[in-house]
Parts: sequence; C-alpha cells; structure tokens
Amino acid sequence: MSKAGHTGSNEAARQRLQMADIARLAGVSTATVSRALNNSPLVNQETRTRILELAASLKYSINIGAQNLRLKQNRTVGVLIPFDPRTHQSLTDPFLLAMLGSLADALTERGFDMLFSRIGTDEIGLAAASYDSGRVIGIIMVGQWGRHQELNALAARKVPLVVWGAQLPQQLYCCVGSDNVNGGRLATEHLIAQGRRRIAFFGDSALPEPAQRYRGYCEALARHGIAVDPRLQVSCSFLPEGGHEAVAALAARGVDYDAVFACSDLIAMTAIDSLRSLGRHVPDEVAVVGYDDIDQASWFHPRLTTVRQPIGAAGRALVDALLAQVEGGAALSAELPTELVIRASAGETAT
Amino acid sequence: MSKAGHTGSNEAARQRLQMADIARLAGVSTATVSRALNNSPLVNQETRTRILELAASLKYSINIGAQNLRLKQNRTVGVLIPFDPRTHQSLTDPFLLAMLGSLADALTERGFDMLFSRIGTDEIGLAAASYDSGRVIGIIMVGQWGRHQELNALAARKVPLVVWGAQLPQQLYCCVGSDNVNGGRLATEHLIAQGRRRIAFFGDSALPEPAQRYRGYCEALARHGIAVDPRLQVSCSFLPEGGHEAVAALAARGVDYDAVFACSDLIAMTAIDSLRSLGRHVPDEVAVVGYDDIDQASWFHPRLTTVRQPIGAAGRALVDALLAQVEGGAALSAELPTELVIRASAGETAT
Repeated sequence: MSKAGHTGSNEAARQRLQMADIARLAGVSTATVSRALNNSPLVNQETRTRILELAASLKYSINIGAQNLRLKQNRTVGVLIPFDPRTHQSLTDPFLLAMLGSLADALTERGFDMLFSRIGTDEIGLAAASYDSGRVIGIIMVGQWGRHQELNALAARKVPLVVWGAQLPQQLYCCVGSDNVNGGRLATEHLIAQGRRRIAFFGDSALPEPAQRYRGYCEALARHGIAVDPRLQVSCSFLPEGGHEAVAALAARGVDYDAVFACSDLIAMTAIDSLRSLGRHVPDEVAVVGYDDIDQASWFHPRLTTVRQPIGAAGRALVDALLAQVEGGAALSAELPTELVIRASAGETAT
Repeated sequence: MSKAGHTGSNEAARQRLQMADIARLAGVSTATVSRALNNSPLVNQETRTRILELAASLKYSINIGAQNLRLKQNRTVGVLIPFDPRTHQSLTDPFLLAMLGSLADALTERGFDMLFSRIGTDEIGLAAASYDSGRVIGIIMVGQWGRHQELNALAARKVPLVVWGAQLPQQLYCCVGSDNVNGGRLATEHLIAQGRRRIAFFGDSALPEPAQRYRGYCEALARHGIAVDPRLQVSCSFLPEGGHEAVAALAARGVDYDAVFACSDLIAMTAIDSLRSLGRHVPDEVAVVGYDDIDQASWFHPRLTTVRQPIGAAGRALVDALLAQVEGGAALSAELPTELVIRASAGETAT
C-alpha cells in the first residue's frame, strides 16, 4: 500500500477507508495505521508487524468491508436481545417486543435495516461478530443481562455499541435507559398518597434496573417514615409467570399487604390476574402500579397505573446514540425521563 | 470461465456456485448457464449474450455473493413486515410482534440471523433487494397486505419467498397461514351454542384472511338458519383503535347485538374495553370471541375466548418452508390448524 490521505482523489478516499477498517480491527487509530504502513519509527515493531499482517491477510475482506461500510453505504444495524441459556426463553416478553418494534421503526425512519440476532447471555463476547465481519455498522443491545464486564470489554475495543439499561459505575459502554430510581420513587409515592403502607415490591433486584427501582421505592418509604419490610420484597422473574409466582410467594409467607409495585406491566397484569383468582379486589384491597406502560396497559382491566418508560423515544435515542458513534462522535449515555401514568389499578387519585 | 461441474475439486465446486448465482440472477437454470458459457447451440443468442454480460459485469459481486451464500455459509434470512404508507403505522400490533418473536426464535434455533426490514405496501416489488444483493438467502414476509400480484411476480422470478397469509387462487408464491375459514366457523358456532343470535363481525374483510374468517362466520350462521345481517358487519382496522371504532359504529347504527366475533385479540380486547365504558357486561350482555390467542389473552379480564393461530409453530413452519426452497426443494404451501380456546369472554360453556 502506498501513502494515502493526502489528496482528495477517490483512490485516496478509498485507501483512507481501508485504513479505518484496519484501525478498527487492530484496535488502534488510523494515524497509527498510516504510520505503520509508512514505516514511521513512531510505531513500535510489534504493532507495525501486526498491522502489516492484518493489511495483508484481511485485504479481501477489508475491501468488502470498506465497500459495505461506506462505498456501498452499509445501512444495517445489529440488534441483539440475549436469552438466558438455562431457560432459553421464547421472545414473548411484551416490553422486549415493544422495544424491538420501536427500534425497527426508528431504523426504518432513518433508512436502515436491522440485523436481529439472539445470543446466550454467556456469549456476550460474541456480540460483535457481525460488526467484525463488516455486516453491520454497530450494535444495539437491549438489556445488560448482568454482563457489565463483557459489555465494557466490547466498548474497550471500540465496537460501536449502545446498550439499553441502567447507568452503572465504571461504565465504558454507551448506555441509554430510563430514570429507574425516579420511576421507583414515583410509583411508591403514589401508593403512599393512596393511604397504602404495606407496599410489596415485585422484581428481580439482582438486575441493575430493578435494583435502581427498588432504591427509589426505599427512598420514598424512608421519606414518609415507613420502615422497609424485607418480607414484602419478592424476587420474581420478568417471565409471564412472574406475577403469579410473586402473589403465591407472599401468600406462602403469610404477610399482609395492601399494595404492589411491580417492576414490569407484565408482572403487574399477571399479579392482578392472580389476585382476582384469590378474590382480592384491585384496587380496593390491593392497589397495583406497574412499570413500562406497554400498549395493553391502557385497555387492561382495571386500566393499569404505571411508570412510563418512553418506548418510542427509546428506539430513536438508541439509534441516534449509535449513529453518532459510527460517525465518529462521542458516545454519550442518556437517561430518559420516567413519568407516572395514573389510570385505575391503584385508585384514581392523582398524587 | 472454463467448464465446471465435472470434477470433485474445490475449484469446480466454486464455479458451480458462481453458475448458480448467475442462473438465479438471470432467472434461468444452471444447466442453461453452463451451456451458455460453453457456447452450446442449445442456448439462443439473446440468452447467451445476457448470461455472458451478467457473468462479466457481476463478476465481483457474484464472487461476494457466492462467498456469502455458501462458501462462508450465509446464514441470514430476510424478514419483512410491510407498513401502509398512508398511515405509517408503528410496529405495535401484538400479533405482528408475536410473529416477529416467533420467527426470531425459530431462526435462532436453526442458527440463522434475521435481517429485518419494513417497506411500504406500495414497494413490495423491492422486497427482494436484500436477496438480489446476496445479503440474505431468502425472504419471509408477514402478511399479504393486498399485494397478491406483486408477490406472484417475486415468486415468478424465483426469489426464495414464503408469505404468511391466506391461500388464494392463482398463487405462485409459497404461503403458510392458518385455516381461517375454519377459525371463523369455530368462533361463530361457539357463540351460537351460547344462545347468541345477533352476532357482530369486526374486521377488515377487504383483506384475504378476514375475508376467509367472514366466510366461516356466514357458513356457521347458515347452518343454523340464521340470516346474515349486513348491518352487523363492521369493517375496522387491525390498529388498537379498531375495537373502539367498531363498537362506536354499531352504536351509531343503532343495531342491537348480543355477541361479537372479532378478527384479532387486539380488536376483541379494545372492544371489551369500550363495552365496559358503555356499561355493557361481557359476557352476560355481549359475548366476545377474539382471534390469534396472543399471550395476553390468557390474563386479560375477562380471560379471552379466542381462535388460536399456532404462533410458535407458525415461525417454525415459515422458516422450514423457506429453507426447503433454498435447498432446492419444492415450495409447499401449508395451512396450519386453528382451534377454539374457551376461557371466559363468551361464557363458560364448551361447545
């Protein structure tokens, strides 16, 4: 390869693109690639050898990659929704499906296709395979799935990546999510304002987002001088059986409660279904607040009071954050606002 | 190019693959391509010229295509859910999302990725772009969207294609769907068995699937000597407002009814929500049967009696039908069975 990047010709542009691809694959800057290819003493021998080998051995796929990426305008974004390999859960969760729909709409609006894959949560390191092979310009992952370190590793090697989830300490990857602490606070404050004091928490607080919602729940209780009762905290999954399991768990514990804050609308709806089977009236006997505000919350009976995550805006924010990275901009994490939507399942009084 | 296909060498295999690609793009058999490239008099001059031009002009992309397709084992399937360009509806329909989830699961099980795109219903002719460029090995389209002729045209030029929808006359494309006539019959027979006689039909019978469900509805009424009353047929969309609109339309017509057969669970659920607002009890005053059996039908209140389309099996059937075509097999259309799932929204008596 000859020197590149000094003229405005198409050939020079093509070579810059190839250098960008080598840089990406080697995890170095294009300036370093340029120096290595030009035998600059500023690049150490190990890096130079590695870059020359990459340039030689990947020439063909680099050509394709460059073509895909920019010359032929690759307009494909990778979207991943992992699954737990122990349960191999089907993709039926209405929040995940709504997020997939929102991403599809946001990508379509901007003229992009979506390469959608599912991988096991134990294979997060493979998430970038479609990027490394040049099929996609970057990756959007829905959920952190307890794989903070693996996601940091992908970000460290400069894979354009945006993750839907919670802001965490030592987070290298770009993360877009909603304000979970405030969401938990809003739900709990609303239930307290309805006169409820025995408020159960349903959700898997081992995961970052439910953990933050639980923090908001505890903060709201503390503000009103209500002690946190650990017997009211039920760890349940986001699967459809979550709400049924949680109601059964509280019955088994024999603890009394007059309200539920559920970490998803699905958990809230299936909990209400179980409460109805037990003859407990919602909201009179048990007030219920959900989380997400998926479409069916508004025509469920009783209509669900819930914390809205802005699902439509979320798809656009994820796509915009990824495209900003692809275009070389900063990977800015963002926390979208959450708001309480008051319907009927927790009583009808606004807080 | 030299003669190919006569030895077991890798080079011969590679050339056969390239010929297969040229054949695909030219819409002729590989035997014709082979003859054309070998100057056989059995191929007419026009075809031969066309094939030689294709071989020359597409050489580079054919190489990529062949690599993608088989040498590097392209394991990507295109999935399309069109949208109506007049409404540019967001992808929130729970049945379409459930089908997308089912396809994702079926593809993941078989080790395939999904390239998901949305196109306008006025652009169905472009549906094969990702196939023509070698990015996917074939296309699955969810819904016919009133574009029977365009789908036939794609099938005629041998694009591997499977469509979810209704079996229709003069159907060249492979179609997988459920038994809509029987579904309409089952729903209506069940309502008649509950003693209902004024059964409204909610659905857009301009589309093939609802039209077949309407046929089943009419057949069941006829079998019981009940006249079809056109005032009870309400054309409504599959959007969430469908059920609300249909209930409002019947109120505006001032016609009385004691039951509803809705062409989707979404229409059924939103209709029940409207009936509840009007103070009409479901099922006592109005019995309601939905269609699809999406997940939330089982925890909606009242739990929805509905006609189950086997959504999980549908994803697998669509993928299997496509892979059979890709592997050179016959494109067999299939009609999956529908069954009545009796819960609470139409009364609790089994038929």
